[in-house]
Amino acid sequence: MIKDSVLILSGGMDSVTLLHYMKNRIALAVSFDYGSNHNERELKCARYQAESLNIPHIVIPLSFMKVYFKSSLLEGGEKIPDGDYDSDNMKSTVVPFRNGIMLSVACGLAETKGLKHVMMANHGGDHAIYPDCREEFTHAMSKAMETGTYDRITLIDPFTNLEKHDIAKIGAEHGVDYAYTYSCYKGAERHCGTCGTCRERKEAFAKAGLEDPTLYEN
Amino acid sequence: MIKDSVLILSGGMDSVTLLHYMKNRIALAVSFDYGSNHNERELKCARYQAESLNIPHIVIPLSFMKVYFKSSLLEGGEKIPDGDYDSDNMKSTVVPFRNGIMLSVACGLAETKGLKHVMMANHGGDHAIYPDCREEFTHAMSKAMETGTYDRITLIDPFTNLEKHDIAKIGAEHGVDYAYTYSCYKGAERHCGTCGTCRERKEAFAKAGLEDPTLYEN
Repeated sequence: MIKDSVLILSGGMDSVTLLHYMKNRIALAVSFDYGSNHNERELKCARYQAESLNIPHIVIPLSFMKVYFKSSLLEGGEKIPDGDYDSDNMKSTVVPFRNGIMLSVACGLAETKGLKHVMMANHGGDHAIYPDCREEFTHAMSKAMETGTYDRITLIDPFTNLEKHDIAKIGAEHGVDYAYTYSCYKGAERHCGTCGTCRERKEAFAKAGLEDPTLYEN
Repeated sequence: MIKDSVLILSGGMDSVTLLHYMKNRIALAVSFDYGSNHNERELKCARYQAESLNIPHIVIPLSFMKVYFKSSLLEGGEKIPDGDYDSDNMKSTVVPFRNGIMLSVACGLAETKGLKHVMMANHGGDHAIYPDCREEFTHAMSKAMETGTYDRITLIDPFTNLEKHDIAKIGAEHGVDYAYTYSCYKGAERHCGTCGTCRERKEAFAKAGLEDPTLYEN
């Protein structure tokens, strides 16, 4: 197996699963620091997981996002809404075109390093809220990456049509330790258990029939 | 005329021309600082031109590029090749997927500000060297922006099929002062006159039948 890919690794359940699932093809894992509490805890998990597999890992600072972009996710935990992940109030957590920005930077890194693909762990559960997680976006972005690079780099997004509990099952089969993944948008040390992403996390373990190793506040 | 667009403004001839040409539609001009000498001089021109039209202007730092991306453009003037713009040795100046990165960030800014379009001044003279200046890329990227945002933001790139001397003519008709634009990849105070971009600049004024206000070293 040739290591031909850059993986976008947040430190949440999905990208950590993809890291383990595709470990033999990943030459570099890249995380992005946009300055939220949530992000800081995710990054610790990302680093831990990449190190556990001896996969090189870098963190790209995107500090301008906190200055210029509007999103409750960038403003800290107290503004994060409680409620279902799939509901309208979660829209305030959208960071405009975040996946486009991360994919573009990862694509530039891939070309610099002579790699052929960028991998991302977007999935079906994100589609209702986040336009930049849907298949029509990932197809168009892959085409943009392919036509915009000498090496015709493309996107690999194997989870696009899976649900989060499907991903948890794949992770369990590949020995992922989900205690070292972080989801909560409120960004406290312990998962809150009530925000949209915590509810989605709990539900994924339950639907997959897996034990949930997470310590929740509620 | 509604101000509905973010313009990517480098401070070179092309984007400064587009700034003046579309001034009534541009709500925000955004420049990117990736830490080269060349870039620093361009940014001064970008600021001057935006201020001259009272168009808000911000600079987004992309300092990670100098750390992680391979390009002679990011390494300083001494490594910039002399010779025609259109030749193979200019390939060392390519910054991998730079337009993809700039367009993605500009798209996120446009969505944050409720705007509908991103404008970029890529043109036909760039096509031979830079894949991320070609129409197949800009079409795909516009589709990615459209599908990845709630507001279905699209790209406007009116110069894609023009040559640089066509752009200079448009600029002259719109009163652009090209003395306050910067092109030289070597990044010294005075344009070198011998690198690919300086040759292309000289040629554009000559072909357009315009006086060239630039002070060249050679």
